Amino acid sequence: MRYELYYWPNIQGRGELVRLALEHAGCDYVDVARGKDGMKHLLHALSDPKRPRPSYAPPFLKVGKQIIGQTANILFYLGARHAELAPRGEADRLWVHQLQLTIADLVGEAHDTHHPLASSQYYEDQKPAAKKRAADFRKTRVPKYLGYFERVLSHNGKQLVGRRITYADLSLFQVVAGLRYAFPKAMKRIEREHPHVVALYERVEDLPKIAAYLASPRRVEFNEDGIFRRYPALDG
Amino acid sequence: MRYELYYWPNIQGRGELVRLALEHAGCDYVDVARGKDGMKHLLHALSDPKRPRPSYAPPFLKVGKQIIGQTANILFYLGARHAELAPRGEADRLWVHQLQLTIADLVGEAHDTHHPLASSQYYEDQKPAAKKRAADFRKTRVPKYLGYFERVLSHNGKQLVGRRITYADLSLFQVVAGLRYAFPKAMKRIEREHPHVVALYERVEDLPKIAAYLASPRRVEFNEDGIFRRYPALDG
Repeated sequence: MRYELYYWPNIQGRGELVRLALEHAGCDYVDVARGKDGMKHLLHALSDPKRPRPSYAPPFLKVGKQIIGQTANILFYLGARHAELAPRGEADRLWVHQLQLTIADLVGEAHDTHHPLASSQYYEDQKPAAKKRAADFRKTRVPKYLGYFERVLSHNGKQLVGRRITYADLSLFQVVAGLRYAFPKAMKRIEREHPHVVALYERVEDLPKIAAYLASPRRVEFNEDGIFRRYPALDG
Repeated sequence: MRYELYYWPNIQGRGELVRLALEHAGCDYVDVARGKDGMKHLLHALSDPKRPRPSYAPPFLKVGKQIIGQTANILFYLGARHAELAPRGEADRLWVHQLQLTIADLVGEAHDTHHPLASSQYYEDQKPAAKKRAADFRKTRVPKYLGYFERVLSHNGKQLVGRRITYADLSLFQVVAGLRYAFPKAMKRIEREHPHVVALYERVEDLPKIAAYLASPRRVEFNEDGIFRRYPALDG
């Protein structure tokens, strides 16, 4: 069955975590909002008052008549269906999901570095606060999160869980890519302390289907509308 | 089997969402950190370098040898084992989980109203920023989130999913209780627009096991170390 992904067409954002999973598993999918009349379909799906189980926000995935929202929930669903994305046993599946939810927390904090006061207002209108939040993010939060994943990797080996890549590895790759984009100076320093995380990043980058995807026009470029934004004032 | 819950002993926090589920399902559980040498056990479990699958932060639940972290993940696990907490079918279980993850987002935003710049620093040192973030939270975020749950409830009826209470209903009750505690003035106004949410709150409050729990010493009081804090400067 063809998956229909609904997400903002011009950013990587949280949708990218789903895109990477769909690509790595070789799924047949359509990125609805990037096609013809895409935004119209996305906005309709979000606001249709007849829909009994609406999603609060993109991304959501349509599979036949079922619609699944919340990034980590979508990945959990895909993990149960594609052996390329997660192990089979329940305890392992919950552990991968736990890691994914921790990655989600890090992604949320990355967003708030440029929007510490209100997501409804411009970055330019909250820049002094953004500088403070970003400084704390670089100094305490990123090292704490990456230190945690380093610890998990140093226990397990080349990937976060078991003997094969899972969707959590793909998401950790994406987060490191985003942190490198947004905070190049800080990451140069922080990465030295996290060799397992860097090795995983490089491994995921070289996975055949991921490498092909990253080189394709399907991969949206990082930009200053997404979660990870390159604002030099916030790096250091 | 007896569940062991690990969470900070002196706050409701995210652990409360798990406590409410355990109580409503009548589970045999121990709130480890509230017992003898509790904090020692909690901190050991968090930092033990021999643990191959550590949790990033409390709460986590120990079930025999398995340890499950991340609040929504714990609830998903419990929902599969206790019919009092979630329906059985996979699509319904994912939908309850999706709602729970949206509640988790709201909880995270509630926390950041008093810590918009750095969770490692005191509220008193980020008060001007907190006022701005809290104003946006009251004016745009709470109405958007509660409006979403109102929409879901107005489709489904007296509870969020299906014909019985689920853990997502218990969590929504807790969030409304927390918002009422932290933002009494704003909530008085906002609640008028969300009659289904208020009705659900009242229904959960009166569930026999929940009512007994709320009246017991097991329920920690709201306080200014938790996620929902009553700082009059942030209400309005």
